[in-house]
Amino acid sequence: MFGGTNERPTADDEDRIIPIERYGLKLMSMGYLLDDTSPAVLRGPMVTRYTQQFLRQVAWGELDYLILDLPPGTGDIQLTIVQTVALAGTVVVTTPQEVALIDARKAVTMFSKTNVPILGIVENMSYFLTPGEGTRYDIFGTGGGEREAARLRVPLLGQVPIEMEIRESGDTGRPMVDKFPTSASARIFGEIAKKVRECVEV
Amino acid sequence: MFGGTNERPTADDEDRIIPIERYGLKLMSMGYLLDDTSPAVLRGPMVTRYTQQFLRQVAWGELDYLILDLPPGTGDIQLTIVQTVALAGTVVVTTPQEVALIDARKAVTMFSKTNVPILGIVENMSYFLTPGEGTRYDIFGTGGGEREAARLRVPLLGQVPIEMEIRESGDTGRPMVDKFPTSASARIFGEIAKKVRECVEV
Repeated sequence: MFGGTNERPTADDEDRIIPIERYGLKLMSMGYLLDDTSPAVLRGPMVTRYTQQFLRQVAWGELDYLILDLPPGTGDIQLTIVQTVALAGTVVVTTPQEVALIDARKAVTMFSKTNVPILGIVENMSYFLTPGEGTRYDIFGTGGGEREAARLRVPLLGQVPIEMEIRESGDTGRPMVDKFPTSASARIFGEIAKKVRECVEV
Repeated sequence: MFGGTNERPTADDEDRIIPIERYGLKLMSMGYLLDDTSPAVLRGPMVTRYTQQFLRQVAWGELDYLILDLPPGTGDIQLTIVQTVALAGTVVVTTPQEVALIDARKAVTMFSKTNVPILGIVENMSYFLTPGEGTRYDIFGTGGGEREAARLRVPLLGQVPIEMEIRESGDTGRPMVDKFPTSASARIFGEIAKKVRECVEV
C-alpha cells in the first residue's frame, strides 16, 4: 500500500535489515522479503522467529513511534509481540457488524489479559460514500464500534468511511492522506493519529 | 453466521464432539467451544492439535461434503490440513483489489505446491448494489478476480455482490439463501455451489 513492492531491503554492517523508506516512514514487511506470488508457508515457531527478527534485527534507528500492523487473530504473532516488547498500547480495528465485533472483543480480551493498554477502537468501513454526490450507505450496519467502545469503556477513535479512492490509493501505493488529503477518510485518519498520539504521550 | 452461538456441542460415547446442526449442515467451530469474548490464544502446536481434532475427533457421520472454511494465510492451519487429509480441491476467495489478489495468489501457490487442485476463484465484494434501485458501485475495483483466474488458468466460479442484507443475515444467524433466496447474492451462491459440485464429482 506504500508501493515499493519490488524493492528488496539490504543489510547493514551488523547484518541488520535496513528498512524501506516511504513518506518519512521506515517500513518492514514479509512482503519485502518475498515476491508477489510466494507465500510465507510458516509454522508457529518460524512465525515467532520472524516476528522477533522484525522487532530486534531491523536497523530502525531513532524512531518517534514503532507501529505494528498485525493480522487478525490471537496467535503466535500477537503472543510473541506482547512477550518481547513493552507496548504503549493497542488500537483495535473493526467493522461495524456483529460478526466482526466478536473478533474485536476477543482481541481486546487478549491484550487486557496481557496488561497492554487499549488506546481505543477504530471503526473501519463505517459507511460507504458514493463518489460525486456523497450519498451515505451503512453497508455493514451502524453504531457497532460506538456501542462496543462504550461497553468496553475505551474511546472510539474514529469512523473511517469506505471511499472508492481508498482502494485506488492502496493499489497504486500512494496513501490517501497524500493523494486525496481533503477527502473524508484522509481527514479522519488525521484525527485518529492525533488522538492516538495524545494517548501515548505522557 | 448460522446462529446458535450460545449452544455448546456435547460428546458421544467415544468422546467425540457431536457437531451443531443447522439447515441440514453439521457445523463445528472454535466459536462453539468458547464464549463470545474469550479469545483462542494459541501458539502453533495447539492450533495444529485443534485442527486435527476438528478433522478426526468430531462425530461427522456420513457426509456428502466436508467443507473447511479457513482463515486467510498460509500457516499452521493450512499446513496441518494438507498434511492430514486428502482434499478434493480448494476454492480461493478474494476481493477485486490488487492488495487482496496478492494474498489470493500466495494461497494458490501454496495449494499448488502441496498438490491440492485449485477448483477456482470466487470474487467476493465484487460490487455494491444499493438497496431498492440496485445501482452498482465497483467499490473495490473491477475485473480483478477475472484477470487473476485467467492468469492462473482456473475458473472464475462467481462474483458475489455486496448487498446490505448479507450483513444483516450474517449477524442474525439466518443465511442469505434461506432468508432472501431471490436476491442477487443468493442466486450467485447457488451457482457457485453447483459449479463446485461439478468440479469434485467424478
